[in-house]
Amino acid sequence: MMPQWIIEKKRDGRELSASEIEFFVAGFTRGEIPDYQMAALAMAIYLRGMTPDETALLTGAMMRSGDVLDTAAIPRPKADKHSTGGIGDKISLPLAPLLACGGLAVPMISGRGLGITGGTLDKLEAIPGYRTNLSEREFLGIVADLGCSIVGQTDRLAPADRKLYALRDVTATVPSIPLITASIMSKKLAEGLDHLLLDVKFGAGAFMRTRDDARRLAESLTRVGRAMGVNARALLTDMNQPLGRAVGNALEVVEAAEILYGRGPADTTELTLAFGAELLTMARLAPDAAAARRALRAAIESGAAIAKFQEMIRRHGGDPEAVADYNRLPAAAIRLPLTAPCAGFVAGVDAERIGRACVLLGAGRKRTDDAVDPAVGLTELVKVGERVEKGGTLAVAHANDRNRLEEARRLLVEAFAFADAPPAPAPLIAERM
Amino acid sequence: MMPQWIIEKKRDGRELSASEIEFFVAGFTRGEIPDYQMAALAMAIYLRGMTPDETALLTGAMMRSGDVLDTAAIPRPKADKHSTGGIGDKISLPLAPLLACGGLAVPMISGRGLGITGGTLDKLEAIPGYRTNLSEREFLGIVADLGCSIVGQTDRLAPADRKLYALRDVTATVPSIPLITASIMSKKLAEGLDHLLLDVKFGAGAFMRTRDDARRLAESLTRVGRAMGVNARALLTDMNQPLGRAVGNALEVVEAAEILYGRGPADTTELTLAFGAELLTMARLAPDAAAARRALRAAIESGAAIAKFQEMIRRHGGDPEAVADYNRLPAAAIRLPLTAPCAGFVAGVDAERIGRACVLLGAGRKRTDDAVDPAVGLTELVKVGERVEKGGTLAVAHANDRNRLEEARRLLVEAFAFADAPPAPAPLIAERM
Repeated sequence: MMPQWIIEKKRDGRELSASEIEFFVAGFTRGEIPDYQMAALAMAIYLRGMTPDETALLTGAMMRSGDVLDTAAIPRPKADKHSTGGIGDKISLPLAPLLACGGLAVPMISGRGLGITGGTLDKLEAIPGYRTNLSEREFLGIVADLGCSIVGQTDRLAPADRKLYALRDVTATVPSIPLITASIMSKKLAEGLDHLLLDVKFGAGAFMRTRDDARRLAESLTRVGRAMGVNARALLTDMNQPLGRAVGNALEVVEAAEILYGRGPADTTELTLAFGAELLTMARLAPDAAAARRALRAAIESGAAIAKFQEMIRRHGGDPEAVADYNRLPAAAIRLPLTAPCAGFVAGVDAERIGRACVLLGAGRKRTDDAVDPAVGLTELVKVGERVEKGGTLAVAHANDRNRLEEARRLLVEAFAFADAPPAPAPLIAERM
Repeated sequence: MMPQWIIEKKRDGRELSASEIEFFVAGFTRGEIPDYQMAALAMAIYLRGMTPDETALLTGAMMRSGDVLDTAAIPRPKADKHSTGGIGDKISLPLAPLLACGGLAVPMISGRGLGITGGTLDKLEAIPGYRTNLSEREFLGIVADLGCSIVGQTDRLAPADRKLYALRDVTATVPSIPLITASIMSKKLAEGLDHLLLDVKFGAGAFMRTRDDARRLAESLTRVGRAMGVNARALLTDMNQPLGRAVGNALEVVEAAEILYGRGPADTTELTLAFGAELLTMARLAPDAAAARRALRAAIESGAAIAKFQEMIRRHGGDPEAVADYNRLPAAAIRLPLTAPCAGFVAGVDAERIGRACVLLGAGRKRTDDAVDPAVGLTELVKVGERVEKGGTLAVAHANDRNRLEEARRLLVEAFAFADAPPAPAPLIAERM
């Protein structure tokens, strides 16, 4: 077998076999197939596509390029949620302890933020002391003991994906459904899951701009999950405005804790409960969604959920009191309220602009090796449909640098749109697949 | 400008600008744009195509990646012929001295053979002492003095093409009309030509299998030539059976010399005269094809043509007597006649099989770093339409290794097809563009 024969086959729109995909991915991982051959294959896949079978084979080969967690010794059903990334999306933080309270084991391996999209790891690392780089043994120990742990990827998780992703970024082959699917699922399925919920976002702040694109990706993701023996379901969710009222790492930790105290904003609380109910019913730990929601609410009201979150933080070396006394979290030096130029109803909050402003403030990364400032971001964000008076607060910017704040402010003033009447409400969850 | 933006633009089927193409080719030549980005762009070009304007811009950028010959000091019209490669194609050898006799200056830069396709340089190097690696100064000096010189490419000729060609070979991006066009024309136009004749071959032994593909390539080549200010014309020629009666380096030198003595096979003599007449009329050195042919025949009959060839060989350090006394050329140890299994008319001689058999004998290369054996090959090849008796000679194999000969023989027995009646004759030159 020669790599160029495989490239040629895909170039001509023909279906690759299991052994061809395995050969290419394994050779690429070992460095025997050079980057330029993988770049040519990636472009051929981008332009010619892949069948569902090929996508599943690619996912499997990429998953097996590294370690696959052995979760067999954990007696609970193993489950996770993966989101395609958004602005203000802190749902993983309250969801993992809630699912653990509901009887699931959640071995969650997360990523860092890049561009306007935040990352779960960056948020957790805003908690003083929280370690995301545990050994596999420590990680699985915490999952077994508590029912949840959130860590970062090691070099041994799907190394083919890490190499391929870096290459796709510089060869204009990122927005390809089969390649996105294999990238996401090779890492998620390496967690040794029984159940996987996929949160596929669409809109101004999402990777998939349209609902149709999101649906195509969701179909591909769930199909590959099922082909690989995992109970997979997808929800298409709206990412036109940011989620919740806070964007920025420490600021989102506060909002996550508030959800677990039962005081979170309506939208993020609702998504947390909806995702939780979905996974509890998928795992048959609740007879139906209503019963699942009751169980989740009970965990919040009893204090079990926040206690679970604090215990997870403690086991990761973090300060559990930081989610009780928020003064223990990093805080920014400057707070500047942004005020409404006129009275009216909020007609739009542009998630992409909000995301770019937060990157400018230092909450996100332009490049993978940039450092993030855990303290900066936005709080008290207005939501679409809310009434504001002239001079009323649209958001509060938290900054550590006056110049960056000024740049961000210029972007933020254009992020809000107003109207005389509230717009028709858009559902948070547009579709369930 | 970022390389990935240019890749993305081509990926999406949009037309690249002059500055984008120049930036990419110059960056790639200098090693600032890595192979993997060029590989992705090449696959995008393969699958999305290029407009004639883009192809001309790519050709120009690749040509300017290296030296362009300054032929202004040579008072004659500068002309060359380029063939897309075939089996037994030795036409460049007799054509260059004939054109020089006709009043043209021929600064011919040629390549080596690869795969089943022979190379002009390998044939010339079968002549004892012939140097193909002259300096630019020596080369132009011979062209100015004699009217012709045939040399190999230096590292300074279109280095972008050399790098890109090596990459295309291993990324399944060879058979792309814009990329083939830019590769051929960037090198040919660096010769500083006024007139260029393109011999685009089609059939079993050619790179382009069908006449339609050959026509598309010919259109692209001539269009780019004209866009770059060169008088370019193309002929589509048949490469279903080998050209002439000899295949193999020294064996083809003999046939080339025989053409110049006026004793060559009908087909190679005819192509030599046709190509020569084409270029002499293009350069207005003859009023029409008939007059041009008369001039070329006169140069053969007077001995001027073979004398010019011998003079060119001498100036290249070669033994001019080797094309008068063929015993001075390398000769193989073993000669084996292949005989006809039955009587009949030759219905087909499969050029591809003949080519592969000659590679097996050692006349060609499987890889660019293989050595060739100048002595081996085939002579006395029958031609399609000829009558053979049972036991009559189909060809004589020249070999230096019994095992290789046996392998080649097995391939050769299947290369000949017979029929009860001669097939309808196919014209050598199918189309003129």
